[in-house]
Amino acid sequence: MNQEGQEIIVQAEPLHEFAIALYQKAGVSQEHAKLMADLQVETDLRSVHSHGTRMIPWYLRSILDGAMNASPDIRVVQEGPGFAVIDGDNGLGHPPSALAMQMATEKARSTGIAAAGVRNAGHFGAAACYTMMAVEAKMIGFSTTNTGGPSVAAPGAAEPVVTNNPLSYGIPAGEERPIVLDMACGSSAWGKVRTLQMYGIPIPPGWLLTTDGKPTQDPNEGKILTPAGGPRGYGLALTMGILAGPLVGGLIATAKQGDATSEHFFIAINVASFTDYDEYAAAIDEGIRAIQAAKPVEGVDQVYLPGEIEWRKREAWVDTGIPLHINHLRDLASLAEELKVDICWEW
Amino acid sequence: MNQEGQEIIVQAEPLHEFAIALYQKAGVSQEHAKLMADLQVETDLRSVHSHGTRMIPWYLRSILDGAMNASPDIRVVQEGPGFAVIDGDNGLGHPPSALAMQMATEKARSTGIAAAGVRNAGHFGAAACYTMMAVEAKMIGFSTTNTGGPSVAAPGAAEPVVTNNPLSYGIPAGEERPIVLDMACGSSAWGKVRTLQMYGIPIPPGWLLTTDGKPTQDPNEGKILTPAGGPRGYGLALTMGILAGPLVGGLIATAKQGDATSEHFFIAINVASFTDYDEYAAAIDEGIRAIQAAKPVEGVDQVYLPGEIEWRKREAWVDTGIPLHINHLRDLASLAEELKVDICWEW
Repeated sequence: MNQEGQEIIVQAEPLHEFAIALYQKAGVSQEHAKLMADLQVETDLRSVHSHGTRMIPWYLRSILDGAMNASPDIRVVQEGPGFAVIDGDNGLGHPPSALAMQMATEKARSTGIAAAGVRNAGHFGAAACYTMMAVEAKMIGFSTTNTGGPSVAAPGAAEPVVTNNPLSYGIPAGEERPIVLDMACGSSAWGKVRTLQMYGIPIPPGWLLTTDGKPTQDPNEGKILTPAGGPRGYGLALTMGILAGPLVGGLIATAKQGDATSEHFFIAINVASFTDYDEYAAAIDEGIRAIQAAKPVEGVDQVYLPGEIEWRKREAWVDTGIPLHINHLRDLASLAEELKVDICWEW
Repeated sequence: MNQEGQEIIVQAEPLHEFAIALYQKAGVSQEHAKLMADLQVETDLRSVHSHGTRMIPWYLRSILDGAMNASPDIRVVQEGPGFAVIDGDNGLGHPPSALAMQMATEKARSTGIAAAGVRNAGHFGAAACYTMMAVEAKMIGFSTTNTGGPSVAAPGAAEPVVTNNPLSYGIPAGEERPIVLDMACGSSAWGKVRTLQMYGIPIPPGWLLTTDGKPTQDPNEGKILTPAGGPRGYGLALTMGILAGPLVGGLIATAKQGDATSEHFFIAINVASFTDYDEYAAAIDEGIRAIQAAKPVEGVDQVYLPGEIEWRKREAWVDTGIPLHINHLRDLASLAEELKVDICWEW
């Protein structure tokens, strides 16, 4: 999607400083501002622009409008040997989510597997941010979230009944790059629909339905997403919205309004509890190499692992800078002007 | 698929007795024979014929041929507060799997979440058998398995790189029926391809590829399945084959031959550790009722919950008997003749 004249290259380091400054000017603590910038710039570096710094204006306008709490009192409300539930006090989603995955990995070191949920918090960005934390701890990570009201149909439904919940698995390897699956349960992420719309690329057929449940490729008319893989995407979206939902004291999607707070859910599995870590890592490496060496269909250069394209982009963009769409940067610039923060790119 | 003249109605209770007799005649212990019959007849009652008693000839011929162990020494080889790994000693897959889910639910009662894996065992039947055990314990259950060599392509691949692993979530409700998701990661389960073939129903386009990676609708020519939802089904199949695979000391799919033993993996999440159980159950009931009341598209009578169609079939077939395909019964009859067991239906 590197379309001529629509992008400006921004370096990761000044973008990180810029993001911190925005959060702090909006009243977010230095610690939370740094965490937000870390995770959002990392998400941009992985080319998942829909879930990185493009979200800053949405998050900060919620704080500036008084709808979200800039200085939440994040509290652990349930805790036991392998579980925790955290109340995010209507603040940003990332800080309680990072804490939840940190608690899950610490607990899993002795229990083998642990889970932590977050309720009453904001959007948590990219689900992969948290599963990669588990990977750093040599664990298999799982994360999911439940944001907003229903927007995905069930097979046979003319109205949305589940939220477009993502799910991510992070899988540590040995010498190879970790496997990072991060998928929406709908035919697409809503953020990706917006990205295509921003770049003027047509929406593929089969993704969107009108409010009457009729197929459409018009991103303005398309108000409902179809589920990925029919009953599979619907079933997974429903399940994810129960783990990140009623299981942690939140609402189920059909009971949610669009402006409801979100729930998040995380699992860490300590590989070394189950098997010899080095044997595990060697088996994963072997699988990764076999898939990369698999015969591609005509016109395809290589079969990729989940997350591999994102790792490759990251490795390049750390050096060259990140191409960001001018509309993305305009929204950031307009917020920066309000908050009296200098932008870190040249128009 | 209730196609005229192709089915015979068999009552659940005599089918159960018949299955027990077959297993015992093949040298399986009374305890394991009963467990196999319980789970397989229950699977037939839920209309998942591909994973129920139709599997008996495959399982028992493996035992009679000496490829599988009739009297395995099932051992717990790793165990801690929230985890266990069981070696199935190359026996039937269901007994160590039922033990694994039982251990997971017992451990989760104190740790909040627990996981157990099985390695070196046979096919475990329907993944939902085990998540429904967690549901009985008022827990959310998860199960997956890794059977045989690669048979599903990645997007862009001209050869199979992952196994058609299923995954199941079982979700307890309050007054409503539990939600039971049981899905393959490929565009279909192989068993469902065989069911359609048995009934002479055409295979839908997009499911099958030839050994050269070319699309086909011929079930004899189709040797590779496409992944459900493209990268999503591929990514999930790969992940499931790592949880039920290297994580529990097994092989990754690309390193497996078709006759390799299977691995299985189970998680139990104790709802009451995370939140008030009654509030949780009320929220699930509310969600179920809202989805059932959702507006269907023209020509569809109702929007169904995952597993709902199977519950409805079960409720009917417990009374009326189970319609089984004559080829399914012929295979059972031929095995029964060898083992000198009387069949429980009239031709």
